[in-house]
Amino acid sequence: MPIFHVAAEAATYTQADTLWLMVATILALLMAPGVAFFYGGLVRVTSVVSMMMMSFGAMAVVGVLWVLIGYGVAFGSPLIPHWIGDPFTDLGLSGIIGPGGTVDIHLVAVAAFQAAFAIDVVALISGAIADRAKFGSWLIFAAVWSILVYFPVAHWIFDPADGWAAQMGVNDFAGGVAVHVNAGAAALALALVLGKRNGFGKGLDKPHNVPLTMLGAGLLWIGWFGFNAGSAGAVDGTALLAFINTLVAPAASILAWLAVEKIKDGKPTSVGAASGLVAGLVAAAPSCNVLTPGWTLVLGAIAGAVCALVADLRYKIGIDDSLNVVGLHLVGGVIGTLFVGVAGIGIGFLATGSLVQFGVQTLVTVVVMCYSFGMAWLIGTGIERTVGFRLAPDEAGTAPDVAIHGEEAYTLQA
Amino acid sequence: MPIFHVAAEAATYTQADTLWLMVATILALLMAPGVAFFYGGLVRVTSVVSMMMMSFGAMAVVGVLWVLIGYGVAFGSPLIPHWIGDPFTDLGLSGIIGPGGTVDIHLVAVAAFQAAFAIDVVALISGAIADRAKFGSWLIFAAVWSILVYFPVAHWIFDPADGWAAQMGVNDFAGGVAVHVNAGAAALALALVLGKRNGFGKGLDKPHNVPLTMLGAGLLWIGWFGFNAGSAGAVDGTALLAFINTLVAPAASILAWLAVEKIKDGKPTSVGAASGLVAGLVAAAPSCNVLTPGWTLVLGAIAGAVCALVADLRYKIGIDDSLNVVGLHLVGGVIGTLFVGVAGIGIGFLATGSLVQFGVQTLVTVVVMCYSFGMAWLIGTGIERTVGFRLAPDEAGTAPDVAIHGEEAYTLQA
Amino acid sequence: MPIFHVAAEAATYTQADTLWLMVATILALLMAPGVAFFYGGLVRVTSVVSMMMMSFGAMAVVGVLWVLIGYGVAFGSPLIPHWIGDPFTDLGLSGIIGPGGTVDIHLVAVAAFQAAFAIDVVALISGAIADRAKFGSWLIFAAVWSILVYFPVAHWIFDPADGWAAQMGVNDFAGGVAVHVNAGAAALALALVLGKRNGFGKGLDKPHNVPLTMLGAGLLWIGWFGFNAGSAGAVDGTALLAFINTLVAPAASILAWLAVEKIKDGKPTSVGAASGLVAGLVAAAPSCNVLTPGWTLVLGAIAGAVCALVADLRYKIGIDDSLNVVGLHLVGGVIGTLFVGVAGIGIGFLATGSLVQFGVQTLVTVVVMCYSFGMAWLIGTGIERTVGFRLAPDEAGTAPDVAIHGEEAYTLQA
Repeated sequence: MPIFHVAAEAATYTQADTLWLMVATILALLMAPGVAFFYGGLVRVTSVVSMMMMSFGAMAVVGVLWVLIGYGVAFGSPLIPHWIGDPFTDLGLSGIIGPGGTVDIHLVAVAAFQAAFAIDVVALISGAIADRAKFGSWLIFAAVWSILVYFPVAHWIFDPADGWAAQMGVNDFAGGVAVHVNAGAAALALALVLGKRNGFGKGLDKPHNVPLTMLGAGLLWIGWFGFNAGSAGAVDGTALLAFINTLVAPAASILAWLAVEKIKDGKPTSVGAASGLVAGLVAAAPSCNVLTPGWTLVLGAIAGAVCALVADLRYKIGIDDSLNVVGLHLVGGVIGTLFVGVAGIGIGFLATGSLVQFGVQTLVTVVVMCYSFGMAWLIGTGIERTVGFRLAPDEAGTAPDVAIHGEEAYTLQA
Repeated sequence: MPIFHVAAEAATYTQADTLWLMVATILALLMAPGVAFFYGGLVRVTSVVSMMMMSFGAMAVVGVLWVLIGYGVAFGSPLIPHWIGDPFTDLGLSGIIGPGGTVDIHLVAVAAFQAAFAIDVVALISGAIADRAKFGSWLIFAAVWSILVYFPVAHWIFDPADGWAAQMGVNDFAGGVAVHVNAGAAALALALVLGKRNGFGKGLDKPHNVPLTMLGAGLLWIGWFGFNAGSAGAVDGTALLAFINTLVAPAASILAWLAVEKIKDGKPTSVGAASGLVAGLVAAAPSCNVLTPGWTLVLGAIAGAVCALVADLRYKIGIDDSLNVVGLHLVGGVIGTLFVGVAGIGIGFLATGSLVQFGVQTLVTVVVMCYSFGMAWLIGTGIERTVGFRLAPDEAGTAPDVAIHGEEAYTLQA
Repeated sequence: MPIFHVAAEAATYTQADTLWLMVATILALLMAPGVAFFYGGLVRVTSVVSMMMMSFGAMAVVGVLWVLIGYGVAFGSPLIPHWIGDPFTDLGLSGIIGPGGTVDIHLVAVAAFQAAFAIDVVALISGAIADRAKFGSWLIFAAVWSILVYFPVAHWIFDPADGWAAQMGVNDFAGGVAVHVNAGAAALALALVLGKRNGFGKGLDKPHNVPLTMLGAGLLWIGWFGFNAGSAGAVDGTALLAFINTLVAPAASILAWLAVEKIKDGKPTSVGAASGLVAGLVAAAPSCNVLTPGWTLVLGAIAGAVCALVADLRYKIGIDDSLNVVGLHLVGGVIGTLFVGVAGIGIGFLATGSLVQFGVQTLVTVVVMCYSFGMAWLIGTGIERTVGFRLAPDEAGTAPDVAIHGEEAYTLQA
């Protein structure tokens, strides 16, 4: 499912189309601080700074890398056909912004929009390793994983002219697989590589600042309109359908999550509402361009309920995916991606569902999940065995913020 | 005063018009978290989570209801001519988004934009019942009041082709009556139904987190540009006039509020600045399309000064409108709405002021105020007498957040 | 370098151009609360409210003044040719919004966009006088400095038809000189006029709330896309080039700042990341329309490294520029402005660099720096000697928020 036409067709875009991409870029970039605050509020007071810095660090490292080579790997002319693009002809965006000032404005907007995707996907991963990662090692991981995993996967899925998954016809509109399954699988690998925190268990996860997390959730919700509807690359019917579905999905999934909590635990929580919001938005990412609002309501409710039911599994299995990245992004991403293939069969859909489509959706999901997990495990292990990835126990046990950054999040006594 | 043309005319909208509605929708949706933080910062530390959850709950419940039936009741073909539209032909937005994927993009954008209005108006009400409302009961109120009050009132005022108030020629551009008088009257009813908090008085209202309230105020200001100028439904002279007035009105009303505080109490406060900002924006909502910037300055100053003078009345009268919803939204909404009718008489206006216009503005204000107050009182009382609305005294007296959501807003000790 | 065409040419703008200016205005306005939170998080817990109120006060005072006379002084027909425009013909924007409702929509959007600039530049200054300024005196300064300094300087630089600096061909796209050098020089003057805080030194600057500062930094980053790319006044190649450079510059400068900290102090800090982000954005402001992304990477890295190296100079020199306004905005602004003149000489640039250009850039920088510093010193001293500017020692020593506003930022005990 092509989301952007190639360069030759760029002339067919209007100014309004390009402007929408600019606005959508800004919204999608707002999700990076959104992740910083969502995660930052959930952790203990001793690791707030280090949690937020993983998102801000991703902005910096991935921002630079994307402009240097990421755009070329993801959207350049094929270097290895169907697998990766050529970073050299587009080095520093030189393929779309020449020294003479000639600029293909729509492609520059595409490059900026996709930069936000590359930044966000890395920021998301950081939630799995709260309280215990070295900052420099995280930056190295962010750089290497982006180059070896995200940039190529973006080519596979988002480059309609060459990517193998795009050419198979996968419908991964705003990245249910490319972003959320991808980030979730990498998060799982890193949680395993870095191991559990001391005292890991449900009680450890008491959020130190709920308003900060709700701020993050609010920014994610707002930003996601750009992320999803911007993926149309134009102001058209697809964009508007994605737009309204971005309103519908989280509304339904918040209600579903809160209902599950009420039934299961007696009390609906704000962290549940924030998590439900994210689950619905994740599920809508791959599907919002091909579901009616009615079916998106159904999808949102399913995603919210299922993610709420599996949220505590990590405590039982004993994997310290600290802030539930796997349970929201991998699980929600799979649900949304497969729903595209299921939902169309004879029930009045936008005619995308079919057994073939379901097969394609499943295949691409599995391949990306395995590739991202395996590579993240290798990269993370490599870092751990060389410069070290996990904080020394005495540092992590007391105050990661002081140990890593020499700062405390709050100084509230006069 | 029609704000959106009907379907048949949609083809006359440009891509830029539709894009502006999309952007305006996102801005207007940002106001829901804005309300959550504005209110959340003002309450005591023991009810921060429950305060924010009333806004986030409104997003979820009203978001779902709007898409299912709200759009149809407000903007569908008449079911009871001049009073309500038909929810069935537009069930789940099926009237504007068909299974074959045909989408009237401008109408979908209108539906999304108006969803934000429906969400915001409910979130505003919650400030009147801080610290003492059951969450589930609030969600029930949000649902029933939306269906019985907001959706029909939106039809009366915002549907130019059928609404009785619109056809009388009321100028309620971005909802001084439909949103602010409506929410303010419902807030007054709920404050009466739920009764006073223990220890109600001026001291109880010391905000627990001023930066959180200022964040809410900042988001409301930014979001309101979408709310007001988006109501033009196009990038045109009306939108730009509304836009610049949305800058002018709060600037003037902040200064007026702070001046009143300085004279009355000796010290201008940040809560006063935030309240003044809201008062000016409320007053501009119905009027920003027909006043010059100069007259909007005057209106802003009046709204700021009057709202500052009446802000403490609730303590004297003994009505626990906890966060001053009535004093800002009902009072500010009435001022702005009637100013439209007053201001034009021979003083160089955009020629809207007249005795007839003043009469229409007054009539619509009174009808909506009485209808909303009466219905909210009935719905609230019905909930209180069945499942209960007010928290049991022992719960509310200690920590509503723990009692309702099992959470505390902050855990700042390591 | 003209950033906006004059009125006669306004008809050549498309709806999309005007819409982009509206969106950019909203983004640039978001920077005012952004500054409030960036600064508010950095100060001690006893002066959070007073710090934020300086930004919110600037929004109110400058918002009103800009609409009344600022637009006329900056963009009206010449009153003193090449130096200031005529505030009377445009009083209350009456020159572009007539009583009959005729509106030149693009010019109204320009007026709104430039209002955000006028507000932001004043808010930036406030960081130099944290903890020790009277609120009313600050409002007086904001008003007088805007009228005597910012409005004229905006005319010099941003009015292509008449301003002397614009006619010399200065390239100050989004205000490296007009905004950042201007604000930085005024900040330096005020820091001298108000003098040092008791106990001034590096330890005093421990931020009371790092997440609040990171929120401010995030909003500044997002808002700056409007500030920079909106300065094109259109959706065109210049806007897109500025847009992508606004992504590149802070990414590079964050990395540079953190690297300097790591080498110098052993630990990269979150305040360093936030400061690096601002330094890169400041440097991009004058230059983002004429540098390739590659050269912007270089500029961002230089700005981040240099600003990191000079950040502690104020402690050695003994000037209490409390929140480093001079070190970020004056230094970063000079770097970015001069880089425009240096960078083009025979090294593959967009052909703007030359010795002549370098001379023009230097001249305009020096003139504005001296004018702003001198005027700010005069205005500040005048206020100090009449109504007083600095808080009485006993007030400032304990709790400025209580002394000035009668409020405390937090009440976290139930």
